[in-house]
Parts: sequence; structure tokens; C-alpha cells
Amino acid sequence: MTLQKVLIAGEWRASDLTKTFRAENPSTKEALPDEYPVSSWADCDAALHSAATAADAMRSLSGEQIASFLEAYSDRIEARKDDLVEMAHAETALPKAPRLGDVELPRTSSQLRQAAAAARDGSWANATIDTKAGIRSCLAPIGPVCVFGPNNFPFAFGSISGGDFAAAIAAGNPVIAKANSSHPGTTRIFAEEALVAAQATGMPCGIVQMIYRTGHEDGERLVSDRRTGAVGYTGSRHAGLTLKAAADAVGKPIYLELSSINPVVILPSVLAERGDALAEEFAGSCLMGTGQFCTNPGLVLLIRGERTESFVNAVAEKFASAPVGTLLSQSVEKTLGNNLTALQKAGAENLTPDATANGKGYCHANTLLRVSGSAFLKDPEAFQAEAFGNASLLVIADDCDQVRAIADSLEGNLTGCIYSASSGEDDAAYDEIAPRLRMRVGRLLNDKMPTGVAVSPAMNHGGPFPATGHPGFTAVGIPASLVRFAMLQCYDNVRPHRLPVNLRDANPTGKTWRMIDGNWTQGDISS
Amino acid sequence: MTLQKVLIAGEWRASDLTKTFRAENPSTKEALPDEYPVSSWADCDAALHSAATAADAMRSLSGEQIASFLEAYSDRIEARKDDLVEMAHAETALPKAPRLGDVELPRTSSQLRQAAAAARDGSWANATIDTKAGIRSCLAPIGPVCVFGPNNFPFAFGSISGGDFAAAIAAGNPVIAKANSSHPGTTRIFAEEALVAAQATGMPCGIVQMIYRTGHEDGERLVSDRRTGAVGYTGSRHAGLTLKAAADAVGKPIYLELSSINPVVILPSVLAERGDALAEEFAGSCLMGTGQFCTNPGLVLLIRGERTESFVNAVAEKFASAPVGTLLSQSVEKTLGNNLTALQKAGAENLTPDATANGKGYCHANTLLRVSGSAFLKDPEAFQAEAFGNASLLVIADDCDQVRAIADSLEGNLTGCIYSASSGEDDAAYDEIAPRLRMRVGRLLNDKMPTGVAVSPAMNHGGPFPATGHPGFTAVGIPASLVRFAMLQCYDNVRPHRLPVNLRDANPTGKTWRMIDGNWTQGDISS
Repeated sequence: MTLQKVLIAGEWRASDLTKTFRAENPSTKEALPDEYPVSSWADCDAALHSAATAADAMRSLSGEQIASFLEAYSDRIEARKDDLVEMAHAETALPKAPRLGDVELPRTSSQLRQAAAAARDGSWANATIDTKAGIRSCLAPIGPVCVFGPNNFPFAFGSISGGDFAAAIAAGNPVIAKANSSHPGTTRIFAEEALVAAQATGMPCGIVQMIYRTGHEDGERLVSDRRTGAVGYTGSRHAGLTLKAAADAVGKPIYLELSSINPVVILPSVLAERGDALAEEFAGSCLMGTGQFCTNPGLVLLIRGERTESFVNAVAEKFASAPVGTLLSQSVEKTLGNNLTALQKAGAENLTPDATANGKGYCHANTLLRVSGSAFLKDPEAFQAEAFGNASLLVIADDCDQVRAIADSLEGNLTGCIYSASSGEDDAAYDEIAPRLRMRVGRLLNDKMPTGVAVSPAMNHGGPFPATGHPGFTAVGIPASLVRFAMLQCYDNVRPHRLPVNLRDANPTGKTWRMIDGNWTQGDISS
Repeated sequence: MTLQKVLIAGEWRASDLTKTFRAENPSTKEALPDEYPVSSWADCDAALHSAATAADAMRSLSGEQIASFLEAYSDRIEARKDDLVEMAHAETALPKAPRLGDVELPRTSSQLRQAAAAARDGSWANATIDTKAGIRSCLAPIGPVCVFGPNNFPFAFGSISGGDFAAAIAAGNPVIAKANSSHPGTTRIFAEEALVAAQATGMPCGIVQMIYRTGHEDGERLVSDRRTGAVGYTGSRHAGLTLKAAADAVGKPIYLELSSINPVVILPSVLAERGDALAEEFAGSCLMGTGQFCTNPGLVLLIRGERTESFVNAVAEKFASAPVGTLLSQSVEKTLGNNLTALQKAGAENLTPDATANGKGYCHANTLLRVSGSAFLKDPEAFQAEAFGNASLLVIADDCDQVRAIADSLEGNLTGCIYSASSGEDDAAYDEIAPRLRMRVGRLLNDKMPTGVAVSPAMNHGGPFPATGHPGFTAVGIPASLVRFAMLQCYDNVRPHRLPVNLRDANPTGKTWRMIDGNWTQGDISS
């Protein structure tokens, strides 16, 4: 049993700790060998001090230099793939393939490369020049970014490897990563590689730092410290809202990804066209990764009828017979059980009462619940509790109007889907429901489950509260996700040689898109 | 004495009121004739209901239709100029000329026309299309926007006429305007013209609504109501932070403009070059409009020396001899007095002890304070209290290092200026100080006072907390100010005919800038 060190100010050092913890293997419920420190405020303070110094130094780095770090790190991640996959598998029970090694790791390294390209290109900074008024502005680094990663994507959303990390660094900021307590070893391996890549590419020593855990008060103090620029958080609603209150009170931007049940509407005529295929598609999407996706379809809205009954039965059979996956942790198992009990207490019927939790380690039976639209509308809040894991709630509405009313009653979600017939027979219902659902979700899909989240410049992995804390930003997609970690800086009558390079007359790269006098261009300003 | 009505759901109706109030003429300290209602929650609820209906209707309006309303309204404002100027002069004591009639009113109508052009053009929505992935996204209206306007710009920042109003409407949202209690009559005239313009151009009846005042609890309830989309607030820090806490708790974007002391650094060699002219320039900027500008230079950083003493003396003389303007209200007079007393208690010396408050009505003597850099650094918070009005604090630092330390100790501000010699002799000091000041301000100026705020696409009228609540947004400048009142909406695999027009293959106007597959273009997508 080794007590692991924290990464602060460019070195692995003994933590100033208050206590220690160990991670568990969710498949065996056994503690893993390493011991990890819970940092005191002294660790946080030291990290903030180093990050503030790094933030100053990073302001004079070019996009090319930052890109070279991100690319070197991406290379090192790929080279360390076997260690990462082994450790993450042990800590999360997520399958090595298909998932950790062949899906999530390539996504992670590719995301870092896309972030590198955005840093090199510089267009993300939205340089805007008014030559007549002598006013020029751009987005610029906001300062040290604290990243809190979730339990469910140890690589692609990891605090020192994932989307928030890539975006914060590409925008020119140092990162203080708070490891997720369920996979500290995975986070440590990433931190090792990040440090070596940073040293090899001449980055300031505080560009990447990592601690494992803090007390709650120190977490709040960290996000609201004067030296902190912004925060990225993905995780539980309760912890997220506590950090949000602390950051909001001092005007620190905090970007949250909290909970989302991702409503899916399946209209009658598409059930007629391909109900069996949809049952297969839905069950597959819902049970994939033991349902532990931010965009897992946790709420399905259907209109009552024979075909709906057939669909419901088909899905229930699939749920009951599908293998049961392992959950990420004891806490996920417990919360899932509690939330499913609460949904049933509120009036939902369990359609899979005989299903067994025949998985390895922490697990819960695949669970399909059902409630009527009228019952849902009597207590919409109760039926929107997120049951994170291999479960979903079917809502059987009386008619299209009721689906519309349910859509109006929804909280904010990351995604919303509508399946409709290719014949056009569902189009009237679509036109009634889509505008309501649209206002409740960040991404509206047609005829497709929401579980895939492409790293596209047009992606929105965001949405109205409480899916996130602000509906104007996305956590996935480059360069859009970078703007979260930036402040708007305007230069008024500033002498030309004192302007940042991206606001000077000559285009800094020959390729940077800039808005000059009302037109987007990659050109120079002709004098 | 007439009890005025509120504008709710497209009609002037008797308020469901809790009490009434009257405005005062600050020049005479006499109450003005009209009586205005303090609305109960019933008024707010009715306004929210109508606004929610209007928000739905507005989603199907074209940018051209919204532009036609804004332009019709702009025309009507110009036609009603005399009434507006008379009423605003009576309510605020701001001069008719130069100011209300020849500066602020043209700025206001021009701003509405620029917003109309932005709505028509549609480029503000940042349409982003990934043809390969089948993912398209844009910014879209966020829903009803509550606007709280400040006391100091009854036209250009007025809740139903100013920048927040123009931006919210141009982005496709209805506005619920909360009049500033110091100029309710001015707000009423605007509301009359807005309603007629809305009716004439076929807008939904809840697009513009106006109430005069609410109780504090109802204000918090208004900004956090489920039907509210976002909030724009310009005013005192205390009231703003109360509303921010209420809105933040439920994830409603709230854009604040709170307090700012707008530091100005004047380096030694530029004083040698043109100290007298700078004294004139500074005194003029600081006393203009009786100092009641958001970007008023309230803090001047100088390095000690003979030329600094000459500058200080010259400014003190100008302050003592300049005419004293009338302040906006009794409350401004009282707060200014209190804050200047507090600054002196903290250790600032009054350089204008013999100056008299020989103005009309509510007023305070032009006041210049002085403190050493060392004293400032001992209690930076105390010396950053905003003394809103015709006053400023000079900080005399020992050297450039101390100026740098003071810059580091500053809270967030809207602006920061550095004056330096044209000879280049101040450049070393500039290079030391500018990077520090840069991080504390939204707009950095060279050789120019901050009081002018051009309506430029490159403007940033924003800055780090507590100047605003989020450093990524600007309240002035079109189209940039529109994005505050929008949510990011993504369409994934959505059938082409169901996409909003700005995300279809054909460019909706032939002129809308869209980011298609990584390139900005005004073209179509070729199939």
C-alpha cells in the first residue's frame, strides 16, 4: 500500500493531508492497493499560487507552443494506453473493449489534438476589429481553471485529460485538476504523462496540477479564491450546486454539467413502421455502459395504444433478459436503488419485477418503470429524479396534447429526441411537440438515440438548468467549448505595437478568422 | 396628481399595487406631479404570463419583422424627442444640451437601428454547421428578459429603450422593463411609443411590458421565475447582488453592471510632455455629467515627483473652481457624501476642503481626494469604494513597482487607462503595469479618458466581477451584446425541412455569416 503524492508546482510532492482514502474495484467490491491523500487547504493554496504564476507566463505563449504541449501529451497518452486501460478498468469496471481502449481513449487523444489545432489556429478568440473607431477586442485566457471530473468517463471527461481540460489549456489557462475519487489511479497516470509532456515542451511548471480530493469547505474556497479564473464541474447535482453558490457569490464563471434524463418521444406511426427495431435501439442505448451516460435516455414519452403496448412489452423483455452490467461504485448502486424506489413510491410501476441483479460486483437489475401521463403531470418533479444507471421510465400519455404538456413541465436537459414516421404521418404531432421540447434541451435529435456525443464544432453538450448552469455554452465541441474559459478584452486607442498579435493589422497565422469591420476574414488589414 | 397605469399584456391597466411613489425634480428637490404604483406580485405574474406567450409567438417571427418593430420604435422616439427631453430633464436634472437631446437621444435611437440591422442580418446567432456529422447549431431566443435600468442614463440604458432592451428584443425575446424609480415618467413615455410601434408592426402584445417598481421579494421572485429567460441589470451593487443570488440559484443567466472606479494610470514622462493638458482632460472627464458615468475615472494612479505635485495642484484648482452639477437624486447625494467620508476615515486627504456645493438642488462639492500608494495597499478594499458622482481619488505611489502592486490589488472594473509619453520614455513602466491592469478591466485604453463608450462591434462594456457578473460578455456593442439573451440550440440529425431557416442549406438572407465546416461564409451549402 503506497501513499500517493500530489502534483503541485511541477513536482510530485507529499500532500499536506487531512486523511486518506482508497478506491475500490467495483467488480470485486475490494479496495485497490494504493492510498490517496485528501488534501488540506495548504495543498490548494500552493496549487493556486503556482497556477497564478503559470497563468501569467502562459499569456506570452503562442498558440503554437500550447498546441505543441497538447500534441505531446496526446502522444504520451497513446503510448501509455495499456496502463491507462488496465487501471481504469480496475477502478470503474468499464469494459476494456468495446469502450476504454478502443473508444474512449482514442476519443480523448483526438480531442486533445483538436484542441491543439484550435490553439494553433486562434480563430476561437473571436478577434473583432473596428478600424474606424480604433477599438479591437478578443477573448483571452481567464486564469487558473479548476476542473472537477465525473465518475463515468475516466478518460474523455477526466479532470486532467478530458474536454474541460483540453478546452481550458487550449484557451491559454493552467488547470488544477481534482481527481474523481472513484478513479484516482487513472487520474494519476494521466497527470504523470501531462507533467512529462509539459516539461518536454517548455511549459511553465504550474500548467498542470492535480490533487485527489479536498474537504467540502476547501472545495468551495478553491472555486471562489481570488486567483481562480473559472471552474468546470461534471458530477452530482448536489455537490455541483454547492460549488456553484460559492463561485457565483464572487462572480467566478462556473460551468456545470449536472443531471439530465434526456427525454425521448416516440410517436405512434413510427412505432407502426418499426416498433421492434426501436425497442432494440432503445434498450441498447439505455443499457450501454450500464446506463451510466450523461445522455442516457431516462425518460420515454409514448402515446397510449396497442403498438405502444407491444413496444413496452418488447423493451421490458429485453431489459429482463439483457446481461446486467457492473456499476461504477457502491455510491452509484445505492443512489440508483434509492431513486428507483422513490419513483415507484411516487406511483411508477416496475415492469421488470423479476429481473435479477446478476452482474458482478456493484450492480442493480435492469429496470424499466412505467407511469401514465396524467400521473406524471400531477407531480412532474418527482418523476424527473435522475435514476443514473441501467434504468428508464416510460410515460404513457393519453394523447399528443398531454405529451406537449409533459414537455412543458420538464426541467432543462442535455438532449431531447423525437422519433417520427418516415411517411410524414407523425408530422402534425411533431410540430406540436418539438417547439416545447426544444426550449427544454440543448440538443434536439430526430430518429436517433442521444447517447453518442460527437466532438463537432456544431455540437451542444449543454442545455438549460439544471442540465448545466448556463444555457449558452457547450462542454463538448471545439472551438466552442474554449470560450467558457476566456474573458472578453477590449483595446481602445491602444498603440499598435502594444496590441496582442491577434489584434494587429497582419493576420497572425494567415489562417485566423477575424471579424474586421463587420466581415469575417482570414486576411490582413490593409494600411 | 394622476396615478399612472402599468403596461401589461399590450394595454395600459391599473396596477395591482401595494403602495405608490412619486419622483422628484433633483434641481428643486420637489416632488413631481405624477404618482406611480409599486406593483404587487399579481402584476409581475400577469406580465410573465403575457411575456411567455409572446416569447412563443416571437420564435416564428423573422429577423426582418423584429427589425421593423425596432425601426418603427426608433422613429417614434425621435418624433417624441421634446417630451422625452423635458421629462428626463425634470426627473434627472441632466442637461438638455449638451446631453439629453443632442447626445443621449440620438445614441438611443441609433442603437435601436443597429439592433434592427443585427436582427435582420442574423449573423449574431453564430450559426454553425457540420455537414459531415449532420449537426447544426445556433444561438436562439432565451425567453422573457427582465430589464432593470440605472438612474444615470434615462435613454441609452433605460429599461425599455436602452442597450439591454435593444439587445434582448433583437435576439427575439420579449422584455419586461422595470422602470428606474428616479425617472418613471421618462420610462412611461418610452413605453407608450414602444407599444404603439409594436402594434403598428404586428408584434405579439406581450413583447414590451413595463412596471415601475416592485417590493424586493417580488423582484427576486421575478428574476427566478420559471418563465423568465434571462435578466439585465444596471445599478447598485447591493441590489444587483441580491437579484444575482436569486437568479443564480435557479440557473437563470443574469447580466449585471454594478460598480466600477475605472483606474487611470498617468506615467511620469507624459506628465512632463503635457501635464497641464492632462489636468484639464481629467477634470473635464471626471466632472462631466456631475461624474455620474459608469466609466467615470474614480481612481488615478500617479508616481510621486514634482510634476505629479503640479498635476495634483492643477486638478485640485479645477475641481474647486468648476461649477457644481446637480446629482440625480437625494440618494446619490447621500451615498456620495457617505462614501467620501469613509474614504477620508480610511486615510485619504481632501484636497478640495474649501470647495462648496454651490449647485442647484441635490449636489455635493467637487471633491478630489489623495492617498499614498503605501496607505492604499494597506487597505485596498476600503480605498476602492465607489464614490459615484463628482469626485475622484488620487493615489500617489512611490514607484512603478508600487503601481503594479496596486493594479494587482484592484477589483474588476469596466475600464483601465494608461497615459504614457509619446517619446517612449514611459514604455518600460507601461510594460510592467499594463499586463496587471489588463486582467482587472474589460477595456484597456491608451492616452484617452474612459468616459466615452462607443457603440462598436468591438466594444467591451463589461469586465471582471464586481464590474459585472461574468467577464465574457459586453452590455454595449452590437451584435456582441445580443448573445447574452440567447441559448445555444443544437440540431442533430434533424430533418432538413424542420430546421430553423438559418440552419438550412440556403443562406436565409444571402448575407448571414455562418460557420460551415470550419469556414465563415455568407454562401449556401451546395448540395
